[in-house]
This record gives sequence, structure tokens and C-alpha cells, in this order.
Amino acid sequence: MSKDAGRVAERSRTIDSVKVALLGCGVVGTQVVRLLREQSEELAARVGAPIELAGIAVRRPQRHPDVPAELLTTDAAGLVARPDVDVVVELMGGIEPARDLLLDALKNDRSVVSANKALLAEEGEALATAARESGADLYYEASVAGAIPLLRPIQQSLAGDRIRRVAGIVNGTTNFILSAMESTGAGYADALEEAGRLGYAEADPTADVDGYDAASKAAILASLAFHTRVTASDVHREGIRDVTATDIASAKALGCSVKLLAICEQVDGDAGSTVSARVYPAMIPKAHPLASVSGAFNAVFVEADAAGPLMFYGQGAGGPQTASAVLGDLVAAARNRVIGGRGPRDTAYAHLSVQPMGEVRTRYHVNVDVHDRAGVLAAVASVFAEHGVSIATVKQEGGREAESPDADDAGHGGDAGTDATLVVVTHEAPDAALRATVDALSGLDSVRGVASVLRVEGLGRPVHALGGAQ
Amino acid sequence: MSKDAGRVAERSRTIDSVKVALLGCGVVGTQVVRLLREQSEELAARVGAPIELAGIAVRRPQRHPDVPAELLTTDAAGLVARPDVDVVVELMGGIEPARDLLLDALKNDRSVVSANKALLAEEGEALATAARESGADLYYEASVAGAIPLLRPIQQSLAGDRIRRVAGIVNGTTNFILSAMESTGAGYADALEEAGRLGYAEADPTADVDGYDAASKAAILASLAFHTRVTASDVHREGIRDVTATDIASAKALGCSVKLLAICEQVDGDAGSTVSARVYPAMIPKAHPLASVSGAFNAVFVEADAAGPLMFYGQGAGGPQTASAVLGDLVAAARNRVIGGRGPRDTAYAHLSVQPMGEVRTRYHVNVDVHDRAGVLAAVASVFAEHGVSIATVKQEGGREAESPDADDAGHGGDAGTDATLVVVTHEAPDAALRATVDALSGLDSVRGVASVLRVEGLGRPVHALGGAQ
Repeated sequence: MSKDAGRVAERSRTIDSVKVALLGCGVVGTQVVRLLREQSEELAARVGAPIELAGIAVRRPQRHPDVPAELLTTDAAGLVARPDVDVVVELMGGIEPARDLLLDALKNDRSVVSANKALLAEEGEALATAARESGADLYYEASVAGAIPLLRPIQQSLAGDRIRRVAGIVNGTTNFILSAMESTGAGYADALEEAGRLGYAEADPTADVDGYDAASKAAILASLAFHTRVTASDVHREGIRDVTATDIASAKALGCSVKLLAICEQVDGDAGSTVSARVYPAMIPKAHPLASVSGAFNAVFVEADAAGPLMFYGQGAGGPQTASAVLGDLVAAARNRVIGGRGPRDTAYAHLSVQPMGEVRTRYHVNVDVHDRAGVLAAVASVFAEHGVSIATVKQEGGREAESPDADDAGHGGDAGTDATLVVVTHEAPDAALRATVDALSGLDSVRGVASVLRVEGLGRPVHALGGAQ
Repeated sequence: MSKDAGRVAERSRTIDSVKVALLGCGVVGTQVVRLLREQSEELAARVGAPIELAGIAVRRPQRHPDVPAELLTTDAAGLVARPDVDVVVELMGGIEPARDLLLDALKNDRSVVSANKALLAEEGEALATAARESGADLYYEASVAGAIPLLRPIQQSLAGDRIRRVAGIVNGTTNFILSAMESTGAGYADALEEAGRLGYAEADPTADVDGYDAASKAAILASLAFHTRVTASDVHREGIRDVTATDIASAKALGCSVKLLAICEQVDGDAGSTVSARVYPAMIPKAHPLASVSGAFNAVFVEADAAGPLMFYGQGAGGPQTASAVLGDLVAAARNRVIGGRGPRDTAYAHLSVQPMGEVRTRYHVNVDVHDRAGVLAAVASVFAEHGVSIATVKQEGGREAESPDADDAGHGGDAGTDATLVVVTHEAPDAALRATVDALSGLDSVRGVASVLRVEGLGRPVHALGGAQ
């Protein structure tokens, strides 16, 4: 401790301005440069000294005509190593070279501000260790939910509470696609194309639509909320590619919307606590506040023992929005340099193991296409019962009236009887039991196929816990 | 700076545990004591050293059987002055003796955590100056919106942005009363009585229903958001005592709810920027997210240039909820003692003057009881026009059919013609012009009286700015 404090004291004597190395200057970086320039006086008043850009590392300097040419460099490592740099702001994305650059920066007592969710989710521990050892700051508010202040509230405002659950919509691209599917009835492919045309989806949408982006964010949120270490590979991940227009219509019929949710929970069991972190599309009731979060907006619920339910809402992406979060961190890091101090430190003392997805208790909505003949419901129901899964509601659609448009589809048995669909919503059960139930259903003679499986969230605790929001 | 940093270094060498003096032990204090005990291990891990209660100052020790008797004292000043105290947590409320105690604490380099909105709104400058001069921390997250992390996001997460507007529901008692009036059709007095019976209103509800509580919070929010100094007396304040069941019904008819709003804005004008802070009941469209915040919940919108609109939602009062916010601050203050560092400092550099309420641009909903005879609408409309107030919509209720139940009331002129009500909603205009219009209406021959006047918010910018939330 005395070593740390001594270093703080020494450092703060020597700083008249805070020099910033910016790594990467794309959509967010350009906005950071603009806001630093436009707000230079306010920022200096808030920090206690001016913030100056020492340099900007980019791959192709000729592509940045709006940035002062003398600041541009292709030598990121050289920029980070410059002795006059106080804070490194990393907006490159990806694991390398960002990882090595930031570890070098932290080891040399440069504070780091990063918006790199993939890196933080993967190498959070190494970065936190490097920061702790040198006494430098490590901030990454912009890595999750864009402009929404979320990590600071979780890490600092709720530092005296026990967080139980963090759940929300943390990926704007998938939320845009699902909102479009719901409002227009479009299929996934058409909605994705529209998202791309409007700039809400990248040319390669994999990171978003397959849930990698949300999984990284879930890992970061779970790590901070539960004072443990969760990496992206610990997060159960399902994307939205397989969500069909029929799924959305089924959800609508039940008064639900389909959202890609990131859910982090601390689960207390007989053998101690574990942590569950998972990303999947799920139906939520339209009355749930998350159901009305549409387009590129993000919203996250945090539930803590004493605080109760909290919601944070805002824009989860975009250049100025993400730059706002980056600059908030930069002001904090710069202020610590000037006044003496330290940002929040890693508190991953809990060492929780990850609950296997099979043990996670969740609910399923299952559309089972069946041959509408005597005993089919009993046969289906007993498969659920055999696996210990309790059925909450079951509804038959089609049937005697043979409404099903694909009633004449080939290859499904060919027994007598018209076709119908059983719409089953289960109570909470371990995910493994639900999976096994669905697998077993496919093997029934009277079942033509399991048409769709979607999880259901927000029917139980979360909504009730909310109280105020209708 | 070097003096500060040196003090930080010196202080951090001597701390093995963080000793806390608790001033006041009511609903919130009891929860703070409980949570400190129940979470002692986690808190020690987060802080880097155990947090220990040095003493608890109360007025009547015999009333606190659940608290260790050896900690109780009636000598608050003596407790604060004890040399082993590191952090003073003030939950007494009111201006004195809290003010003197906290100034003494800060001057002697004790960090302060306070939930005292009245004190912060009134004496924020004196407290901030004392904290700055000694280098001690001053945190007060719990003073506004209970459990909702709001001050830390405004002060720290948005430190690199320009906040334009903070608006929301920050008083649970009035929100409970207005929600009850809306859902049951009850009048103000009945709803207040129910709130008292259920523990949502105090025996003397003045601070809540007359808007003093919300005005203190608005002063704190405006000061932090706009880096200036706003006191409670700078806040235009109207309570909910005069809101009638008819007002609520009128709002419903327009698709609106009535909410007590606290609104803080930075207004850029030709002669520079000013700040407006005001508290009043207003109609907001039911589609606005604030309209669905019911019961004792709070919700606050923050709009910043780069971040865009943000919403924070949660429980604004209650023992455990407020204690959660207190403990978050306590962990931060304790951690700074142990690791060396400093919480955010006062940045009231902007010195904005307060915009007079008469210049604030707002909208009115006015019910004008008139004699339903030829020319009455023209007469009323020309009064609006004379004052430069543009009418958005006007609707006549009653009239030829004489539906008004008080059509035979005495004392209103006695001219020929049945009675009717004109429901007028204006466009934005300076509040002084709207006030003058309402005054002038009362003087018209054809007007029996102005039955109700309510402001309308959220029809313009705020809702549009929201985008995602429907």
C-alpha cells in the first residue's frame, strides 16, 4: 500500500497536462477526437489539467484526413512506449495486437481506457493483474452497452450490495433485426438485409447474430457483478439465425416479444454458489419493460438484494454514444493522474465456478407438430412427465379443421388423422431435462416434428420483482 | 497537488481497518448496520480492509435494542471528533446539527457519506469546499432516487459529455398518491390518507406533497449535471395538493398521466447559458416511459449531447434500498482510505445563473368553464393570441347539452346560455405569458372560471429523442 500511495504522490507532482495515446480511429475514435477538441475547456476544468492527444495510431494514415496529420502514426507500440504518454485509449478491437499493447501500457504504469469487449472478456484477468501490479487504472465502460452507464454502477454504486442477476438486451444489431421481424412479419434473412442496408449490421454479421458480442458482454457483466472471473467461453451462447417468422408469430400469439437476452445469475446451491452466464433468444411478455426496448436501444436489469430491481436504458452503440462512455473513463483516469488516486480495482475474489447450462433452470415454449388423433396429447404429455418437466399451458392449433398450411407435407409418417400443432409452455426445469424432452418428442410416432423451441423468460420472478413498471 | 498526494500517501500507511461513525439510526441506518454485519467479509474483500463501526450517534439509545449497546452514543460531535474515525456516515436528515457535524468532519479529513438531500441542496457548496480543502471525500448518492445509481453516472460516467437535461420522477410518495388517484379515481385527500396508512407518506407529508423533497433533489441533480451551483431556493416548486380528480380525468381523456416531475435543463441563450430547475405536476403522454412508472418507483431521464437519452429506473426510497446506495459510497470512501485515492471533486466551475420561471418555455393544459354562447371561443382564443401563446388543440365539452353538473352554480355571471368547458392545450410559450393568459381569461365576461391548469411535458423533444421506447 505505501508503495502504491508513494507512486501516486510521485506521479501527481509531474503532470501539467494529461497526454493521451489513441489506438484506432474509426467510428468511435473519430468522435473521441472531435469531443476532446470541442470540449477541451470543460474537460480541463473537470480533470484539473488539459487533456492532450499525444498521438493516434492507425493502419492507414491517408484515410484520416479530418485528424491532424502530425498526430497520426502507424507505430502503435512506439506510441504506447512514449515516455510522455499518461493514458492509452484503445479502440482497435480484436485480441491482438490490442492485448500486447495494453499489457505493455499497464506494465509501464500507463492507465488504460478500452472499449474492446472481446479483449476484456478473454483477457480481463491478465489486464486486471497488470493494472493491479503497476497501480495504473483500467477502465472499460464503453465495452458494454455503449453510452449506458452500467459497469460503473455495478462495480461502484452497488459495491455495498449483493447483485443476484443482470439481464438485458446488450446487442443493438440483433435487437434491430428482431424488432423488424416483429413489426413487419419479415423473415430473418430479409430483416438482416435491411439492418445491413441501414448500417445496423456489419458486412459479416457473425459476431452479432451468433451472439458472440453479447456473450463477451455477459462475461464482463458477470465478472463485475459477482466479483469473479467469467470469460466468453464460459457463456452459453445461442444466436438468432434460427429464429423464424413463425417463432415471432407464436410469441405474438402468446402476448410475447422475442429478444436476444444476456443473462447473468449467481445461483446459490447446496455445494456453494455458482455463476450462470448465457445468451439466447427468448420470449418475454409484452408487459415486461424489456419487451418495449426496440431498434438499436439497449436495456439492462440489475437485481440486488438490498437495492431491488434497477433498470438502465439507452443507446448501446454508435460513434458519439460510445465515445461518451470512453470520455467518461478518460476523464476519470486523467483526474486520477492529476489529483492522485486510483480507479476501482479488480475484485475477483469469489472464484465461482460456472453452472453447466444443463443445470440452469429455464422455461421452454415448444411447438410440436402432431397427427391429430386420439391419445396424441396424452403421449406428448407423458414424455414431458417422464423427464420431470411440468407443463404450464398447452394449446392445440389446427387439428380437426386442418388449418395447418403444411398439412400435406410429405415424409411425416403418413398415418391417418389431420395435422395439428400443440403449443406447450413449460414451468421452470433444468435445461438438460427440457432438451431431452424435446429430443424424445421427435421420436414419438404421433409427432410429425418439433417445429420450434424457444426459451421463455420474464414470466416469473423478474416481472413480479419489478412492481412499478407495467 | 503535491500536498494532496502526500496526504493520501501518509494516510494510507496507517489504516488496517476503516472505522465508521454512523450519525442517525432510523429506517436506513438500521439497514446499514445490518448489511455491514451480514456482508462484512465481502466488503472487506472489496475495500481491501475490514469496515468497522466505531460508534452510532442517536438521540434515544433505548430505542435501538437491535444495535450493540456499546456502540450507541448521544454525543454525535464527540463521535465525529474521535481520532480513530475515518468515515462519517450521516443519516440524521435536516440542516442542523448535520451541517456543523459534517463540516467539522470534513475539516478534520474525515470522509463523509450522506443521504441528506436537504443539507446537500442547501449547503452543498460549503461541504464541497471543506472536502476540497482537506482532501477528504464527500459522497451523497443516497440523497437522490434511493437505490438508483444516478449521481455517480451523472458525475463520473458522463464526465466527458455535455448533459442538457435531467428529468424524472424523484419522489415516491407523490408518485404513489398520483398513481392511486389515477387507478382508483380517488381525490387527493383520500389517496394521501391511503399512502399514509400504507407507510408511503409521513404523518406530516409537507416535504413530499409540496415538492420540497423533489426540489432538493433537483438542486443536487442540476448542480452535478451542469457543473454549477443550484440550491433548493433556486428551484421553482409546485406540489400536488391542488391536483384534483378532475385533473387526472382530464389527463386520462387526453391519453396522459399526471406525474410530479423534477426537470433540470441547461438553456443556451444569446446572453450565454442559464440553468432551469423546476418541480411541478405535469401531464405526460401514456406512451412516455415515465408515465408507466407507478407506485413508489422512481425513474430519471438524462439527455446528453453525445450519449443521447438515458433512463435510470428503480426504487427511490425504503430502508434497504437507500442503505444500498449508502454502502456503495461507503465502500468507495473506505477504499480510497486504504488504497490511496480520492472520490470525484466538486466541479462547479460553470457559475450559471438561474433562468427565471417566467422565461421557461413550457406548455399548458387549461380547462376554461365558459358560458356557451356565440363568440366565446373567439373571445378565449384572442386572449391567448394577445399574449403570444399559440393554441395546439381546443375541444369543447358539455355546451348545448349542458352536461356540466354544476351548471346551476350560483355566482357565475348569470348570462343566458348553457355552460360548457373549453379544453385548451397550448404550444410551448414562456411561462409568464401562459400565466398572464390564464389570469386574463378569468376576467372575460364569457368565462365562468378557469377550472384547472396543468403543465404538459414530454409531447415534444423528450419523447421523440427517445426513439426506442414506445
